[in-house]
Amino acid sequence: MIFTSDNWAGAHPAVAASLTAHSSGFAPAYGASDLDRKVEKTFNEVFGQEVAVFFVGTGTAANSLALSAINLPGGVSFCHREAHVIADECGAPEFFSHGSRLVPVDGPEGKMDPAALEAEIARFPAGFVHAGQPMAITLTQATEAGTVYTPDEIRAISRIAKAHGLPLHMDGARFANALVALDLTPAQMTSELGVDIVSFGGTKNGCWCAEALVFLNTDMARQAPFIRKRAAHLFSKSRFIAAQFDAYFENGLWLETARHANAMSARLQAGIGNSDNARLAWQSPANETFPIVSKALAADLAKKGAMFYEWSAPRSAAHLVGPGETMLRLVTSFATTQDHVDQFVDLLG
Amino acid sequence: MIFTSDNWAGAHPAVAASLTAHSSGFAPAYGASDLDRKVEKTFNEVFGQEVAVFFVGTGTAANSLALSAINLPGGVSFCHREAHVIADECGAPEFFSHGSRLVPVDGPEGKMDPAALEAEIARFPAGFVHAGQPMAITLTQATEAGTVYTPDEIRAISRIAKAHGLPLHMDGARFANALVALDLTPAQMTSELGVDIVSFGGTKNGCWCAEALVFLNTDMARQAPFIRKRAAHLFSKSRFIAAQFDAYFENGLWLETARHANAMSARLQAGIGNSDNARLAWQSPANETFPIVSKALAADLAKKGAMFYEWSAPRSAAHLVGPGETMLRLVTSFATTQDHVDQFVDLLG
Amino acid sequence: MIFTSDNWAGAHPAVAASLTAHSSGFAPAYGASDLDRKVEKTFNEVFGQEVAVFFVGTGTAANSLALSAINLPGGVSFCHREAHVIADECGAPEFFSHGSRLVPVDGPEGKMDPAALEAEIARFPAGFVHAGQPMAITLTQATEAGTVYTPDEIRAISRIAKAHGLPLHMDGARFANALVALDLTPAQMTSELGVDIVSFGGTKNGCWCAEALVFLNTDMARQAPFIRKRAAHLFSKSRFIAAQFDAYFENGLWLETARHANAMSARLQAGIGNSDNARLAWQSPANETFPIVSKALAADLAKKGAMFYEWSAPRSAAHLVGPGETMLRLVTSFATTQDHVDQFVDLLG
Amino acid sequence: MIFTSDNWAGAHPAVAASLTAHSSGFAPAYGASDLDRKVEKTFNEVFGQEVAVFFVGTGTAANSLALSAINLPGGVSFCHREAHVIADECGAPEFFSHGSRLVPVDGPEGKMDPAALEAEIARFPAGFVHAGQPMAITLTQATEAGTVYTPDEIRAISRIAKAHGLPLHMDGARFANALVALDLTPAQMTSELGVDIVSFGGTKNGCWCAEALVFLNTDMARQAPFIRKRAAHLFSKSRFIAAQFDAYFENGLWLETARHANAMSARLQAGIGNSDNARLAWQSPANETFPIVSKALAADLAKKGAMFYEWSAPRSAAHLVGPGETMLRLVTSFATTQDHVDQFVDLLG
Repeated sequence: MIFTSDNWAGAHPAVAASLTAHSSGFAPAYGASDLDRKVEKTFNEVFGQEVAVFFVGTGTAANSLALSAINLPGGVSFCHREAHVIADECGAPEFFSHGSRLVPVDGPEGKMDPAALEAEIARFPAGFVHAGQPMAITLTQATEAGTVYTPDEIRAISRIAKAHGLPLHMDGARFANALVALDLTPAQMTSELGVDIVSFGGTKNGCWCAEALVFLNTDMARQAPFIRKRAAHLFSKSRFIAAQFDAYFENGLWLETARHANAMSARLQAGIGNSDNARLAWQSPANETFPIVSKALAADLAKKGAMFYEWSAPRSAAHLVGPGETMLRLVTSFATTQDHVDQFVDLLG
Repeated sequence: MIFTSDNWAGAHPAVAASLTAHSSGFAPAYGASDLDRKVEKTFNEVFGQEVAVFFVGTGTAANSLALSAINLPGGVSFCHREAHVIADECGAPEFFSHGSRLVPVDGPEGKMDPAALEAEIARFPAGFVHAGQPMAITLTQATEAGTVYTPDEIRAISRIAKAHGLPLHMDGARFANALVALDLTPAQMTSELGVDIVSFGGTKNGCWCAEALVFLNTDMARQAPFIRKRAAHLFSKSRFIAAQFDAYFENGLWLETARHANAMSARLQAGIGNSDNARLAWQSPANETFPIVSKALAADLAKKGAMFYEWSAPRSAAHLVGPGETMLRLVTSFATTQDHVDQFVDLLG
Repeated sequence: MIFTSDNWAGAHPAVAASLTAHSSGFAPAYGASDLDRKVEKTFNEVFGQEVAVFFVGTGTAANSLALSAINLPGGVSFCHREAHVIADECGAPEFFSHGSRLVPVDGPEGKMDPAALEAEIARFPAGFVHAGQPMAITLTQATEAGTVYTPDEIRAISRIAKAHGLPLHMDGARFANALVALDLTPAQMTSELGVDIVSFGGTKNGCWCAEALVFLNTDMARQAPFIRKRAAHLFSKSRFIAAQFDAYFENGLWLETARHANAMSARLQAGIGNSDNARLAWQSPANETFPIVSKALAADLAKKGAMFYEWSAPRSAAHLVGPGETMLRLVTSFATTQDHVDQFVDLLG
Repeated sequence: MIFTSDNWAGAHPAVAASLTAHSSGFAPAYGASDLDRKVEKTFNEVFGQEVAVFFVGTGTAANSLALSAINLPGGVSFCHREAHVIADECGAPEFFSHGSRLVPVDGPEGKMDPAALEAEIARFPAGFVHAGQPMAITLTQATEAGTVYTPDEIRAISRIAKAHGLPLHMDGARFANALVALDLTPAQMTSELGVDIVSFGGTKNGCWCAEALVFLNTDMARQAPFIRKRAAHLFSKSRFIAAQFDAYFENGLWLETARHANAMSARLQAGIGNSDNARLAWQSPANETFPIVSKALAADLAKKGAMFYEWSAPRSAAHLVGPGETMLRLVTSFATTQDHVDQFVDLLG
């Protein structure tokens, strides 16, 4: 019963098989192989347009290099207070963008509130050098709260971005989970809503180590080859990432694994809904579930072999957690089995 | 007949098999898995001491983070003029060490001349803020010229490092090739000669993507966990690197693949020695061979299916290349076959 | 009636005279002149200990280089939400410390609340690379709200710093104003309370351009000469700063000018206290005064020649400003005259 | 007899007087004063076009911020091997341009040889991420060797810059000395020859601390306000720089002081030419003179009160210095007197 994180899983068998299949023979290095080129074309098809795509090894790299590519001196980027870029990346985005700043924006259930976003941007009037200057907006889809921005919600943020002339970046470490939750195409969830750059994650959804920095706005990619290489994120045997993505996209595997992860989370949520000993902090259509339970139950679950993190309730949800209670985070993945979910629900009682 | 680079090969079957074997199941992320721990211990055994080891994805990352860990403001590091750090890393070492400088040191056959090194260091007198301050010496073993520093040669450089209080870094992208060429243990080639930090490469010698930043001087590693994470080089499913190294070290596979690569290069050199149409620029005991041939022959070789790079002769060897001639670089690897070598030698005539 | 900022004043006549007096003749450059050395010794006397002092041209430079000198990868520094370092320096502290982060800490009247500070630090558990690591605490004395930390308040913050092993930096752009408000010696306000580094400001208090980065903890200064030079903040004719400080310290001029500025602010506050049309947002013993007036009165004051900034009320004071009201910031300096103060008070009615 | 450096002088009396004259009264800070605006307009007149001008405190700041404004990831700038940017700025240019690299170009008498420049640029083929990418050419006028590029020589370098799409920067720490040596207008020495950015120095030629970053190509200045502020080089009482420049330009003072400095150097050179005990390493029309003398004479000169630096002969001139000989650097300035020059020449015998 492993619900700690989707990155505790290994690789999907198809991904492992693809790596093995491509391990023999020779091919040009640094992204110039036929396989690299083939997968780059697949990205064009996936996004329904010509994109500029750069394979990297970590989601933090994709996010950080995205901000590096649109960097401004004294720049300030806006993200949700609980976003991975600001909470979990050890300052990599700031480092790679030469000291630019991330400003936290509040909003319930992991999503930036547009009014709060506007208020934060307003603190940086155009041309006022003392404060610094707005540089980007970055949203996380699916969010760290397991929720997803609806198209209308993305559009609302995108309008603010356009009004201020700011690039809009989407941290898609769980892109597939959001996509299938919303039943949209990638274009419908990104370019059609004004998203300029996507950190497209494969690792959490079945790959070993496969992330892609995808520029929908290809003008912003002009310096990206040098930015990636200078960051030491250009792999010599780049096709080991391409091979993973090749299997990932083959026959819609990526959507299937995401659907499975989401379904396992929905099953958890249904079970929690039926339990007298647990309740959901909020509904979350992607692959993370946040129940509130008594501390005693949490300890008991752990003792009986369930693995998860107790979660520090975000500001906007702190009031939901009563005395003697705690919030858990349960993450499902392609590797989560229905048995484990049911076992867990049983333990809740 | 692929002699372009050792990074055109894929992964050794044992490495691919290890990845597949470890792809199922769950394990703690970010380097905390049992497999990560096991392989870290293997590194202790390999180096015959407690080391601080950090898995990363590229040799450029290992080199750059090494310099970042010993960074000084206005710092200046010394390396051979043709070293990978200065010639092939797009400024990553400078970027990660906050603008420190790499100063090229001359020397024949890819190896720094100790006197030249001393002369360069002398340009930066202690405490003279205008020039900047010496920060590190970095040598490449095996070198970019396919040669290897002998223990005495490393000792000579190490003495200079110690005399100036400078950390000594070894770029070991081809560590194994040098090791078997010299028939030394890792400790004999590093710690016993005063090397403080090693960029330990697995990728060119049979892995997909497995490099390790190894601190023999563990004091220098204190900030390394944060430096790696801030650089976006901490992998969530870190055990995919551990799994590669696990197979790499198993039963001495890494020494065997390196021996094979070197042997293939030696066979090339023997063949070239017997040819009337080619001659060696210099002897190179590791896995790179540098013949000089007529431009006509180079074109003919390429037409007949041999793949290699024409090589811009380094300063110290420019006089070896006559008019109408060109220097080639031939790189062998675990995947190079004797057949291909013999075919190539036959083509030389 | 100029109350916009203390940096709208020029230079005190004694400072100007000192510059003229030292403008002829020759002297070693880059801080090696007799005058530089003399003023460095004066700093030792002022702080009652051997200090390491570095002249720079701006307060932002002093603050940024201080943080650069104690920089950590993934580092996080804690400051008040309205502190100059986070609100007014265009990301210079982050830039000079290679992308380290400033975390805002709340607290009333411009002063960090110790409990809020502890809570913020607790978000960065030791060794947890994802969040980053605590690196420094920086407090502003006098604060941006014209208030001053009492010795006990500094001690409370210093204890937190020591408990977490964090250097304590004081932004003393208005150091003298705080000092005379508290009637302490520099040592009593800094070293005796555990302050490690001071940005010692002269510019706002009568100099043209004279700031000093003062290390009370001289161990932290080891790299400072290179850090300053690399930042392009080492002046060739460094004695033009020394000459300013020489006059500044001569016969206690600096304390006299600060006392005058504070007295002018006190006079403003008394006048505001006696007015029916204005009230103080809070008492502020240094040289800034924050009245709340009707927007109509603010407009009228401006029309009649008073110059000041309307001030965005900080979070903790937003409730003090009623509808139709606005908060003003009035800053006094060595150059403020009693006449102007009285004229302004008269206009309040 | 001070010939150590032009930055050992203080400030010209007119500059000191201007500072005193402007020290009273109030004025908007951060460059918004009437005086700042007036001097900005003077710069337009001086350069015969609308320029974007940014006052800074050091020549190193001007050079570094210039490179920061045209920064590219993995960028490589080309300068003469003895240029101040590469030899005397402690890596500030690299730091401010996020780790970009300076590549030394050889050439006699302090001037880049165009063919050598082309050869260095050729090492960085377009789009080849491993090497990095050309980013700028920077030349020094007058050079560190006291020589000046002729218009034709600047044009030759400018053509190379344009051919490669590279911005051309001029380090004009001794701009005025070159200008009067060539008897050109600023436009004739810069914009008409394709120079894009000038570091315009006032400090060495009579100011305390007055440098200006001047963009002739104003497109390149778009981010400069933020770049300067982020670098902590925006002065609050910015008019103290403006006041210096105001006096500097008044009635052509700057040309007069430069002419005097050059004349003093010419007088030195004439004296050396007439001496049997000294000879010139090369002719230098600006304000630096490089005689070669016996070591015994050098010691004797020093003993008798002459102050100068012995100069490490550059590569291209090493053969000029015989055994038992040494090269001196003699720098003159607005403050050098004819008496001191004659005294020195007398001592040569």
